[in-house]
Amino acid sequence: MTQHNPTAAILIIGNEILSGRTQDINVQFLAQRLAAIGHRLEEVRVIPDISLRIISAVNELRAAYDNVFTTGGIGPTHDDITSECVAAAFGVPWEPHPPTFEAMRKHLGERFNEARQRMATMPRGAVPIPNAISVAPGFSMANVHVMAGVPRIMQSMFVALEPSLSRGTPIAMRAVHGFGLLEGSIAAGLGAIQARFAQLDLGSYPFYRESGSGVAMVAKGTDIAALDAAIAECSALIVAQGITPMPGEPSIA
Amino acid sequence: MTQHNPTAAILIIGNEILSGRTQDINVQFLAQRLAAIGHRLEEVRVIPDISLRIISAVNELRAAYDNVFTTGGIGPTHDDITSECVAAAFGVPWEPHPPTFEAMRKHLGERFNEARQRMATMPRGAVPIPNAISVAPGFSMANVHVMAGVPRIMQSMFVALEPSLSRGTPIAMRAVHGFGLLEGSIAAGLGAIQARFAQLDLGSYPFYRESGSGVAMVAKGTDIAALDAAIAECSALIVAQGITPMPGEPSIA
Repeated sequence: MTQHNPTAAILIIGNEILSGRTQDINVQFLAQRLAAIGHRLEEVRVIPDISLRIISAVNELRAAYDNVFTTGGIGPTHDDITSECVAAAFGVPWEPHPPTFEAMRKHLGERFNEARQRMATMPRGAVPIPNAISVAPGFSMANVHVMAGVPRIMQSMFVALEPSLSRGTPIAMRAVHGFGLLEGSIAAGLGAIQARFAQLDLGSYPFYRESGSGVAMVAKGTDIAALDAAIAECSALIVAQGITPMPGEPSIA
Repeated sequence: MTQHNPTAAILIIGNEILSGRTQDINVQFLAQRLAAIGHRLEEVRVIPDISLRIISAVNELRAAYDNVFTTGGIGPTHDDITSECVAAAFGVPWEPHPPTFEAMRKHLGERFNEARQRMATMPRGAVPIPNAISVAPGFSMANVHVMAGVPRIMQSMFVALEPSLSRGTPIAMRAVHGFGLLEGSIAAGLGAIQARFAQLDLGSYPFYRESGSGVAMVAKGTDIAALDAAIAECSALIVAQGITPMPGEPSIA
């Protein structure tokens, strides 16, 4: 990694994740998209829909990272309090956003009730993030990007937001798999490879598939030549164990 | 919720989650199991395999919550540093755990190399958490419970750990679904129900399935009679919109 990689955190405002009701899939989507534009995701937090928790987490994370991406809590119901909490975190008024208010009023007509008007209300200074599914936008407030929790809406918002984000050197991954390989047998060798490629993050991950168990070695970083060289050395480690290394997508766990 | 519900946090030590390589499924498992024994999951954090980050997160979370459950970083490779970081967080030596060391030596014989000996090394005072898949255990250090990242091993460790955890009043969920329902149309009514059932957490969640879109209303809490009464009122809200309420597992998103 280099200093040309902005840092990022994800803040999930979601009782439904903490209760185990919903399986989050937003982190993986955002992690992959952020890596592709060179943002280094350094933290994810999941917190409940409680004002003080949201306000303090927003302020802690926006101070610590270049960008914060929030998901959840921007609908029209009583438990959707992310927007006003972001206003409180920044110490600015939470007020109707005139173009959004007007667009939603036109689109919804009589259905633009008090609850839905909350979705056209934003921290002063916010910039809306449109999406292709709903007339209600998310918004960016400085380095805090507030998005929906519903995956398809969040993804559409991220696509709209992406061009406005700075770019870093893309963060790439390479992997090699050894079926029947044991982590404890390659630990010393892998540690030595990591020491030779200090600019990369090397990890090893046991996997258990129907087709067999083994270990994936994964290298992550911005230096493609180094990634390929490190993975070649990992492959040699596998060969030294009498096992044929298998290429594979890093994401096949 | 009541004061009879211990609080909990999950700390995921995992570059592989932050890179988007791996889809976490440990949070949902732990969230559901913790709710069943009455623990209130109040925070999840995902952080990278960096010593200072792990040490500070362990200390922050163990001070803030009754129990902390960590996943990941307890294997034999260079990137597995959770165990020594927990020792550092508690300010105790990280040293071989004699019964674990002996058991692994017997089981592994000549394969019990330096890397694997790390897995028999624990903070002084730790209590091992066995599992049915691997001879290498996790451990509890006071209120910090250190488990593997591989889901099947983590699950086996949690099953072993569970009897030693305190019990709270089980936290239950009830849900009702309205196909074709719009959140903005029931927001005021749902807010009024929440106000009448202050002891429950009520949430509404839009869903998009192949079989149709709509909204799920979910109630969570320890008072079963109140849960049933609140969901009956939610069903009436749906009926008032001219829609037939559908029961359903809370976990069907």
